[in-house]
Amino acid sequence: MTNTVTVMGLGLMGTALAEAFLKNGHATTVWNRSAHKADALVAKGATRADTAGDAIAAGPLVVLCLSVNENVREVLTAAGDTLAGRVIVNLTNGTPRQARELAELVTARGGEYVDGGIMAVPPMISQPEALILYSGSRRAFDTYEHQLGSLGTAQYVGTDPGLAALYDLGLLSAMYGMFAGYYQAIALLRTEGVKASESTPMVHSWVTAMMAGLPRQAEHIDSGDYLTDVSSLTNNAAGFPNLIEASREQGVSPELLIPFQALLDRAVAEGHGADGLARLVELLSTGAR
Amino acid sequence: MTNTVTVMGLGLMGTALAEAFLKNGHATTVWNRSAHKADALVAKGATRADTAGDAIAAGPLVVLCLSVNENVREVLTAAGDTLAGRVIVNLTNGTPRQARELAELVTARGGEYVDGGIMAVPPMISQPEALILYSGSRRAFDTYEHQLGSLGTAQYVGTDPGLAALYDLGLLSAMYGMFAGYYQAIALLRTEGVKASESTPMVHSWVTAMMAGLPRQAEHIDSGDYLTDVSSLTNNAAGFPNLIEASREQGVSPELLIPFQALLDRAVAEGHGADGLARLVELLSTGAR
Repeated sequence: MTNTVTVMGLGLMGTALAEAFLKNGHATTVWNRSAHKADALVAKGATRADTAGDAIAAGPLVVLCLSVNENVREVLTAAGDTLAGRVIVNLTNGTPRQARELAELVTARGGEYVDGGIMAVPPMISQPEALILYSGSRRAFDTYEHQLGSLGTAQYVGTDPGLAALYDLGLLSAMYGMFAGYYQAIALLRTEGVKASESTPMVHSWVTAMMAGLPRQAEHIDSGDYLTDVSSLTNNAAGFPNLIEASREQGVSPELLIPFQALLDRAVAEGHGADGLARLVELLSTGAR
Repeated sequence: MTNTVTVMGLGLMGTALAEAFLKNGHATTVWNRSAHKADALVAKGATRADTAGDAIAAGPLVVLCLSVNENVREVLTAAGDTLAGRVIVNLTNGTPRQARELAELVTARGGEYVDGGIMAVPPMISQPEALILYSGSRRAFDTYEHQLGSLGTAQYVGTDPGLAALYDLGLLSAMYGMFAGYYQAIALLRTEGVKASESTPMVHSWVTAMMAGLPRQAEHIDSGDYLTDVSSLTNNAAGFPNLIEASREQGVSPELLIPFQALLDRAVAEGHGADGLARLVELLSTGAR
């Protein structure tokens, strides 16, 4: 097992990754398009690569964290045969399709490809709370699991190179939904002078209580049997206009609520009124709108 | 203190409320527009009131749980002077404005008004997990807190009769947001064969971890200082298109994500790119769209 690693792309996240490798005693080569961004890392013991090609040639494990996957494609295409025998771990944000295309590019040139999704902000990197999801070459992941463990908790989710991005984006969707609901709640409550710090504990414990029902909803989704005696789509669709009306009454924009009402109404119109809320997954799954 | 109570409206929720009062030894009078809905409760010891007027005349504490507040207004208007000396506890779903208008109607006729928001489904009623929020007359709430405690955990949130509905709708907004995010995540992941029961624990623990940051966001909101070094609106707005693009690539509708992207873009366009996500509360607070 080698103890060297290359980090390409030294934005906030890439820099945090390189620092974590250095801190854990790995010989780290760094590269960034604007070379000066490497200065602080070089002062901490990293080796600067002058070109992207030099960076990839520097060692068998290459971690990329660029701004977009178009740049990853450009760098890897330019690298040509240097990719042979290299393990490319791409932690750049992107979509599953992009990950699969990059995996093809790398494997066609004799390299191995692992894609990753970082479920953390830069200050969390190197702590166990920083969850990083990986997918693609199992062999490559197993070989470098120790090195990758320097960055946070490494979790391998499958051989399809697109899976890590899919998990990443799924988890982010869940987070943004929770945030959207929280902001709507706080915006509503502060119209009557209730401070966010006052209402947040109640919102937190309520949402936590509602999340306890998710495993039951997951059963509905996996079985395809959405019938419920607890809270039907009809009831939810009937009560939901109060949220929109009350928002308007209180001078709060209902823009984040409106598509959910539309989805509820569509589910009822399609004859699913007696089903539980989890049926909405089926409506989302019927394709892009 | 009296030990009698009237329950008006015997849908699933109203029936659960009446059962909870009976179970806790309160002499319970019940009324429903379709009288037969009282049959099962009468068999359990409730007294049937033949008219809405009789129901209100039956005792000093009247709990209403009708389908909509328009019906509550109708019943209370017809009751006229019978309302004098009565405490009306209205647990019908509605908006803060409706609650305030009903409070005026009741107090103008010499009654006292308490509005309530039931944060539970019928099977939870009478258990401590059933949170019921109350607002309006503090004296009336204090007088009947014992009786109301039969229904679940009673929490008084303020004298403005609209507050309970506002908290109710705020908490529901937070819940629906969380559900929306969860459904998007599950819909995305199952496109590659990941079962809901498989991905739900990861989504659950991720959202729980993200919720740990809400008190910090509440501080931003209360102080109006949204500057952050963790995750800026610019970064979030730049990464968010991946969620929409990946949804489309995987055949999942991005309809629930789109208004959040629009809100992020607006925040950046208005010059708040360096602020954290919680700034979005300010954009929602600028009025109905």
